[in-house]
Amino acid sequence: MPTLLHTDEHWMQHALNLAWKGQYSTTPNPRVGCVFVRDGVAIAEGFHAKAGEGHAEVQAMADAKARGVSLQGSIAYVTLEPCAHHGRTGPCADALVRTGVSKVVAAVLDPNPLVAGKGMAMLQVAGIETLHGVLVEQARWINRGFFSRMERKRPWVRLKIASSADGISALNNGVSQWITGEQARLDGHHLRAQACAVLSGIGTVKADNPQLNVRGIDTDRQPLKVIVDSKLEISPDALLLQTGKVLIAHTEPELPAWLTTHANAANIEALNVAPVAAGLHAGKVKTDLLRLLLELAQRGVNELHLEAGFGLNGSFLQAGLVDEIVQYVAPRFLGPGQGLFRLPELESLPAYLQWALHSYKQIGEDLRITWVSHKQE
Amino acid sequence: MPTLLHTDEHWMQHALNLAWKGQYSTTPNPRVGCVFVRDGVAIAEGFHAKAGEGHAEVQAMADAKARGVSLQGSIAYVTLEPCAHHGRTGPCADALVRTGVSKVVAAVLDPNPLVAGKGMAMLQVAGIETLHGVLVEQARWINRGFFSRMERKRPWVRLKIASSADGISALNNGVSQWITGEQARLDGHHLRAQACAVLSGIGTVKADNPQLNVRGIDTDRQPLKVIVDSKLEISPDALLLQTGKVLIAHTEPELPAWLTTHANAANIEALNVAPVAAGLHAGKVKTDLLRLLLELAQRGVNELHLEAGFGLNGSFLQAGLVDEIVQYVAPRFLGPGQGLFRLPELESLPAYLQWALHSYKQIGEDLRITWVSHKQE
Repeated sequence: MPTLLHTDEHWMQHALNLAWKGQYSTTPNPRVGCVFVRDGVAIAEGFHAKAGEGHAEVQAMADAKARGVSLQGSIAYVTLEPCAHHGRTGPCADALVRTGVSKVVAAVLDPNPLVAGKGMAMLQVAGIETLHGVLVEQARWINRGFFSRMERKRPWVRLKIASSADGISALNNGVSQWITGEQARLDGHHLRAQACAVLSGIGTVKADNPQLNVRGIDTDRQPLKVIVDSKLEISPDALLLQTGKVLIAHTEPELPAWLTTHANAANIEALNVAPVAAGLHAGKVKTDLLRLLLELAQRGVNELHLEAGFGLNGSFLQAGLVDEIVQYVAPRFLGPGQGLFRLPELESLPAYLQWALHSYKQIGEDLRITWVSHKQE
Repeated sequence: MPTLLHTDEHWMQHALNLAWKGQYSTTPNPRVGCVFVRDGVAIAEGFHAKAGEGHAEVQAMADAKARGVSLQGSIAYVTLEPCAHHGRTGPCADALVRTGVSKVVAAVLDPNPLVAGKGMAMLQVAGIETLHGVLVEQARWINRGFFSRMERKRPWVRLKIASSADGISALNNGVSQWITGEQARLDGHHLRAQACAVLSGIGTVKADNPQLNVRGIDTDRQPLKVIVDSKLEISPDALLLQTGKVLIAHTEPELPAWLTTHANAANIEALNVAPVAAGLHAGKVKTDLLRLLLELAQRGVNELHLEAGFGLNGSFLQAGLVDEIVQYVAPRFLGPGQGLFRLPELESLPAYLQWALHSYKQIGEDLRITWVSHKQE
């Protein structure tokens, strides 16, 4: 019998660590971890790995069964309110009641309108003590994409950029490979792997012919590739079209013939996202980025990883649609070159957009800085 | 009697902490701390505060005397080899011998050619055990200016810059006050206060009319102000000329009359630092920056704090004369504007100067990144 009983925060952190195990695979579901605790000891645990497979609570119950332990009288710590609806699996709240737990502690309530407090209510009705609001910030962060989709009907947009310490993303002659080091690039693939979709623009496709897939990360899932290509200029030979699911956002009335005859045609979709209001971009119909985001959310995209160029990055930023900027800063000063974002010229400093420093970490020889928008809420 | 005897590193760290107490005041001397230890307990300690006052070892001996403790058989930890020469005070090595210490541990040997191993040799001859090479990196860092002056005959040059996260130091209309926050600016004064001299250019003087002194920091000493002003364009009314010692580096054959009649004339010196090699800058004689640095070192400048504009910063950087860059990065993206440094255009990436990430820290809402040059050795 341990002499020290850990705090709710301790066990919730443990549950969050479990939830992170599903970081690459749960989409469109949230990442959730669960641990059952009795007398200050974890007796069973689990996490949600994949949509269609058991929720974290169910996985932890299976763990208890495998270990031959009873959950009677234990406390369940879950990083998100247990579900109350019949989705692909039964309601977890019901299942928890049947285990005989004495208390359920949830980090945060589920923002999904199908749940939204109903899970906790079901537990209370069954006479189980409930608590929520433990490590709220961390619990929202791990599922910032899911919360964004539920609360704002659009994905969490993370913009990834690599630059020199003097803010240069490419030399004036276009050379940009590689400003940052190998470890930073692998770290970028880790962020791609976490995302439900990776978005880039036709400019980047033409210049770099990227594959836009996840490489060097242990994951079975490849994110959807989204290309903003207003005039449908993409070449059928573009590398990114050869594998995986691709969505091409455009504004053209007619589609090119190759779209139906392409070897990967079954996985390539062209989506017209022209602005609804006529004349919004007189003479130059540009993709309506907000409409595109709303569409992506409807398709279950929680986290959108934006890896585009100077122009498209600037358009997203100017539209106030970026929630997070991950900036890899290399230890060098390049002088003349292309900056980070095409933005309008400012006349005075109080006019600037305000961001906040979220975190920073050395990655190889580079520094990774994560900024979050104050407008995210 | 303690049961745990600390390591040499523990006591050297303690001595380094003492040495930092002299961070604003020891110039042109190095910052040095000393602690006497017996049976795992510190029995006396001291640090060097100011040139002309006792060295760290002497201060620690005075501390022992005030406490009424004998140093017989104790171990002395000093962050720099004890001196062996008769400067303003007697040789510390001699004084240590007289205390009866059994062992002297120095972090690093003194790079001063007047000492350079002789201090340790004097101790050894007297039968005292010696050791050096403990926390070498930290011991060199605290006195990087002193080491630079002794080893390279020029000051350690620290360039301080403030920018947005997209590398903009000023808007195109010149507005730059204030990109970073109040805490970052105070932190900048802390760096000024550590420096022996603060250097800026005539462009910055004309644009901002700065005082270039230390404000908001508890220090009696103001660093020398150095202005690179090739054509002696500075106005007699410039704020920075009103107080403190000023050195104006120029290339003009004649001096203006106001230099002798200025209210602060006794503290203002004009120094001709035109390149020795004729025609080096055909038609436009520019201050020879390396010659200026050699001059400053001869005047006892260990750490030079460079706080200039786009052009002069770029000139120092291009000349390979910058050892450290302290970059305050604000959580905002400003778009079009002035970058950090005027540098020549690169055609390919392998051609860039390579720096290394030294350290980083959140200061208020900003991030302070310290880069060090790989060329510093």
